[in-house]
Amino acid sequence: MRFGVKVLIFSMYRSSRAFSAINNNYSNLYSQVTTKLKEINYLQGIVGLLTWDEMTYMPPGAAQCRGTQNSVMAGIIYDKSTDKELGEMLQMLKVAPQEQLNEVQRALIRDEHLKYTKNTALPKELVQKLAQLETDSYNAWVEARKTAEFGKFAPFLQEWVVASLQKARYINPNEKPYDVLLQDFEKGMTSDRLDEIFLEIRNGLVQLIADIRASRTLPDTAWMRGGSFDTELQSQLCKGISIDLGFDESNGRLDASVHPFTGGAHPTDVRMTTRFKANDITEGLTGCIHETGHALYEQGRNLSPDWKDLSVSGPLSMGIHESQSLLWERMVGLSKPFQRYLLPKLQAIFPDKFSDRTPEDLYLAMNCIKDPSIIRLESDEVTYTMHIILRYEIEKGLLDGSIPVEEVPAVWNSKMKEYLGVEVMDDAQGCLQDIHWAGGAFGYFPTYSLGAMYACQLYACAKEQVDVASKSTCTKGPTLEENIALGNFAVLKNWLNKNVHKLGSVPASGDELMERVTGNRLQPETFLNYLRCKYTEIYKLRESISSDN
Amino acid sequence: MRFGVKVLIFSMYRSSRAFSAINNNYSNLYSQVTTKLKEINYLQGIVGLLTWDEMTYMPPGAAQCRGTQNSVMAGIIYDKSTDKELGEMLQMLKVAPQEQLNEVQRALIRDEHLKYTKNTALPKELVQKLAQLETDSYNAWVEARKTAEFGKFAPFLQEWVVASLQKARYINPNEKPYDVLLQDFEKGMTSDRLDEIFLEIRNGLVQLIADIRASRTLPDTAWMRGGSFDTELQSQLCKGISIDLGFDESNGRLDASVHPFTGGAHPTDVRMTTRFKANDITEGLTGCIHETGHALYEQGRNLSPDWKDLSVSGPLSMGIHESQSLLWERMVGLSKPFQRYLLPKLQAIFPDKFSDRTPEDLYLAMNCIKDPSIIRLESDEVTYTMHIILRYEIEKGLLDGSIPVEEVPAVWNSKMKEYLGVEVMDDAQGCLQDIHWAGGAFGYFPTYSLGAMYACQLYACAKEQVDVASKSTCTKGPTLEENIALGNFAVLKNWLNKNVHKLGSVPASGDELMERVTGNRLQPETFLNYLRCKYTEIYKLRESISSDN
Repeated sequence: MRFGVKVLIFSMYRSSRAFSAINNNYSNLYSQVTTKLKEINYLQGIVGLLTWDEMTYMPPGAAQCRGTQNSVMAGIIYDKSTDKELGEMLQMLKVAPQEQLNEVQRALIRDEHLKYTKNTALPKELVQKLAQLETDSYNAWVEARKTAEFGKFAPFLQEWVVASLQKARYINPNEKPYDVLLQDFEKGMTSDRLDEIFLEIRNGLVQLIADIRASRTLPDTAWMRGGSFDTELQSQLCKGISIDLGFDESNGRLDASVHPFTGGAHPTDVRMTTRFKANDITEGLTGCIHETGHALYEQGRNLSPDWKDLSVSGPLSMGIHESQSLLWERMVGLSKPFQRYLLPKLQAIFPDKFSDRTPEDLYLAMNCIKDPSIIRLESDEVTYTMHIILRYEIEKGLLDGSIPVEEVPAVWNSKMKEYLGVEVMDDAQGCLQDIHWAGGAFGYFPTYSLGAMYACQLYACAKEQVDVASKSTCTKGPTLEENIALGNFAVLKNWLNKNVHKLGSVPASGDELMERVTGNRLQPETFLNYLRCKYTEIYKLRESISSDN
Repeated sequence: MRFGVKVLIFSMYRSSRAFSAINNNYSNLYSQVTTKLKEINYLQGIVGLLTWDEMTYMPPGAAQCRGTQNSVMAGIIYDKSTDKELGEMLQMLKVAPQEQLNEVQRALIRDEHLKYTKNTALPKELVQKLAQLETDSYNAWVEARKTAEFGKFAPFLQEWVVASLQKARYINPNEKPYDVLLQDFEKGMTSDRLDEIFLEIRNGLVQLIADIRASRTLPDTAWMRGGSFDTELQSQLCKGISIDLGFDESNGRLDASVHPFTGGAHPTDVRMTTRFKANDITEGLTGCIHETGHALYEQGRNLSPDWKDLSVSGPLSMGIHESQSLLWERMVGLSKPFQRYLLPKLQAIFPDKFSDRTPEDLYLAMNCIKDPSIIRLESDEVTYTMHIILRYEIEKGLLDGSIPVEEVPAVWNSKMKEYLGVEVMDDAQGCLQDIHWAGGAFGYFPTYSLGAMYACQLYACAKEQVDVASKSTCTKGPTLEENIALGNFAVLKNWLNKNVHKLGSVPASGDELMERVTGNRLQPETFLNYLRCKYTEIYKLRESISSDN
């Protein structure tokens, strides 16, 4: 079928949008701004689809073409994002009497004005420098990691530090550079607040990790390792779980890719991918539940019909996005009640492995804490945050000048010893293990741990509210955990839709979102208590540990 | 995996492209033009990918979002295609001393200058009118067809005639309006030339059709109808055939869709789809071979490394594109030698149906001529062209005023009787059966038949050249048909690559391409002779028929 060539010629025309620069009617001005922003949003959605296609179905020979397509789209998006008229309109709305706008409109203008400022703040030379550094630094990092020689990467890391400081100064000379960079990933967060959060967590975790290592209780978890699990059966199982959790196939797709991710083009077009390994059923399972959490957040934007094509309906921050994936992965997927839902499914498809097992066996196997790993990506929920704190402390030190680039390996190795009690063999397994700094992404790491903490606090709140309702005479019903055991995840999904997803990016920070939803800003002790209670039971730690704090 | 947000911010920047309006260096000017054209080409490729995705993997809920994405992209492509600077540069190159450019460059400027003229010729009101008519007319056609009432569609057809005449006049007031419209589909073709071609064909076919109907020979073809063919097995079979024919999976994909089509984003990213029915193996087979022909033409653009991102490497016309699909479908797929390649494959997967059959049985069953159908899409290769001639005569009559809109059903029905000897029951089965006029696509129909004729002449030429070489002492080898029977399709594919695909859009018309490749412009008698010889043998027609002419 090749019909439609001519049709395209006609539909290519669109009426030009007149813009009257001076307009006292703010509602009209707001509407003009959102028309422009929606167009950018749709273009970004198209880039999302191109990325998904690249990861799933694109033929290998098309790689170069896809690169050019991405670059053409990036150019168009850049032009539209830095359009002078857009900047003027955003400025007018930024300084407008704020009572002329409603809460959602104010939040949108707040975020988009800042984004515009960032997009236009940097001189051309610096933008070019950063783009060049991205490629060069990535290549140097790959090479350095291959031969475990930090020295090969160090000059590029040094350039990233210098260029990032410049960038931060152009964007906001009155803030600490690290705090400016952090905004790209975690809106409204500061390093002072991070220091406070991470100090409390670090102190609590060092003790807990030591106690777990000292425990003589070793739950039998080995039975689930080894063996071979048909990946097609795993895929079908996980697809069913995703849909049970609430993934809406009419507004999204589930596919396979080498690196699982959740992306897509729009809240009505969420593309989630998973990966399964024959020798490890846990990775595919938890990965799928994790990505489903991201996907539910994206699909949750459909609840905001008036502004779902605008960033204000979108993810508040990387940390909040991660909180949605980790809430489903850890608070639900690794929980006891979930194993009651999961076990019969596993028994049905892998009877040899699971038929003689109890939900409790499965719970212990899913929550096995190995000896602390020196690799972040292989670490468990207890030690993971220590990996993040270590990276945070080093990147902050790089930017405030307290840690020179050449000292990174020594500082890294000494902190690994201090926080996790492990020795780093070489830089490839040490400070060169992550890609982030090779892309100059200072401020990215903390969002992983913030996500885990947000998740914990949100789940505790949901549990409390659902359980209170379950006991009230008029809304009597199963508790949240009973619902999870029954595979009725809609209760939790609806709670998140209503309390988190619907708020989109309206709150100015993760702390503000937490306060609105749970009554308190982020409380690290909620996370610590969760870990202590859980692992005290699993490893039969001294009762005193949890009561000490 | 959500890494990469920040990376995007930087890569979004692109250096602005300086343009010096007065430049005596034509090579530099040409290079500036092609930079702009390539950008448009990549954007159109992205639209191609969006269309493919919509037809294959897009979740249903994303339909509205995809509509908006397409409209945003159409707007951007329109803006870039009508960019004033581009127009000025094309004009400078158009009037430049032509020896300053090579043949490919001249061809590109010829076509792009005309395209630009067309894109910018119409006043806004007319463009809006056409866009509106597209939607309204389509809806009216759907409704009219449902109730078989031409009267419901007639006012819209009348509006299309008026608007199309206006459009043609704006583009080129010195040409016959029909000829102007024809250029959108068949570059370099005129109605005078079509009259000449179709008159010859009509006269020859009316006789042949009558002779076939009068024949007392009825080949046994019923055995292949009926029964059930597993669609998954059909799909695997056809995928293998596509690859045997030369489809390159590293630069393309094969998928399933409700309406088979070949599209994609780039010669390195050709997306072809097929469809299989359990109760009919022929449709899926011929459909797959047909689409493979389109796909090989698109992938053949990779042979033009210097200009493969420009329209000059692309399809010359709709007719030539169709010639590539029909060459493989009819000249190869329906041929006797192909059945020797195909039969063992069918026997392997559907032994019940095929194990007792010979290639000759398969040949007769594949080439069964049913009684002439009143439906174009259900007709065979002999009667198909009569359907096209009928439509051509009517649409030309509509535009030159010799056929008023209200007389279309009467003219249609009388021509169906005259050309095919069949009675039209109602307008739904008659003049309302095709979508084309509902989209104002006057000039599209002829390309189907031109494609069949081009295919025949190209195949005859390839056969002659390959067979001559096969007899020469230094290049001795199998003839073309022997190669086909052996499943060695590379000989034909390479011939098409070299003689047709590589020329891209350099020739000014299909006739010019034919002349370059075969030594003669399109010769309808080649097509007539092919049909007469083939069906004289199958239906044991009087020998005199082929010798009469």
